[in-house]
Amino acid sequence: MTIELDIAGALAERPGFLIRRMHQIHLALFAEECAAFDITPVQYSIMTVADSQPGLDQAQLAYEVGVDRATLANVVARLETKGLLRRRPSVSDKRVKLVSLSSRGAALLEKMLLPVQRAHDRTIAALPPKDRETFMALLMRLVNAENDYGRAPLKLG
Amino acid sequence: MTIELDIAGALAERPGFLIRRMHQIHLALFAEECAAFDITPVQYSIMTVADSQPGLDQAQLAYEVGVDRATLANVVARLETKGLLRRRPSVSDKRVKLVSLSSRGAALLEKMLLPVQRAHDRTIAALPPKDRETFMALLMRLVNAENDYGRAPLKLG
Repeated sequence: MTIELDIAGALAERPGFLIRRMHQIHLALFAEECAAFDITPVQYSIMTVADSQPGLDQAQLAYEVGVDRATLANVVARLETKGLLRRRPSVSDKRVKLVSLSSRGAALLEKMLLPVQRAHDRTIAALPPKDRETFMALLMRLVNAENDYGRAPLKLG
Repeated sequence: MTIELDIAGALAERPGFLIRRMHQIHLALFAEECAAFDITPVQYSIMTVADSQPGLDQAQLAYEVGVDRATLANVVARLETKGLLRRRPSVSDKRVKLVSLSSRGAALLEKMLLPVQRAHDRTIAALPPKDRETFMALLMRLVNAENDYGRAPLKLG
């Protein structure tokens, strides 16, 4: 497959560079589609998991969403302040907080469903449908294989 | 292709989620391989372009590296302080700064070449070689197609 490259030769051959750019592109598309809601992709992921698996503790939620625990705790606190999530202490250990979606959070999740779907669809829309499937299958294999990496806070600047 | 998924069902079907996780995984691998150098992937990308295309102005450099101009200016200033990059005013317009690599920067770039290559290789190592090629070709097509998105600073939290 030969393609004309807009991007600098050396960088274009580095998977990490292309993945960073794809991530930025997705963030821009998400911001465009979801500007009205003031919710980031990570916040939306947390709300999704809190909805499909209510009552997880924060460590489990951090694992599912793929962020480190400190980030998770911050974002959950912010979403709780906005009234979108609820936290209650576990019966067996009061230090453990169990997270679930509030009814306001559930309503927002539903309202965002189509815009979010559009952001995800547009992220891979440049590929023909068959290639989209291939790309998603390869991405899933990679993330599954290396799923224990990259949950710690990292210097991004 | 059927694979067992570690990650939550709904999230695993979202390209943006998988791309964010891949990006985190790559950052973790880069940090592991390059811990000794105190250089981030974006800093390394800037040094790479400053090396292969010396004398670009900051706007051009931001475009090549795929970051917004404010981020680029900050990172370049930090690398200049460390003695890794040099900035000089353009002859035609003194407000425009042209960026090039210092000899110290060039030495560091060379020293980091193998560790950086390992980080990139490990990012896609879980795929068989033929699938790696496919994955890279699809990634390149996507980034090229949407290369004008995602250069603005975005709220990530």
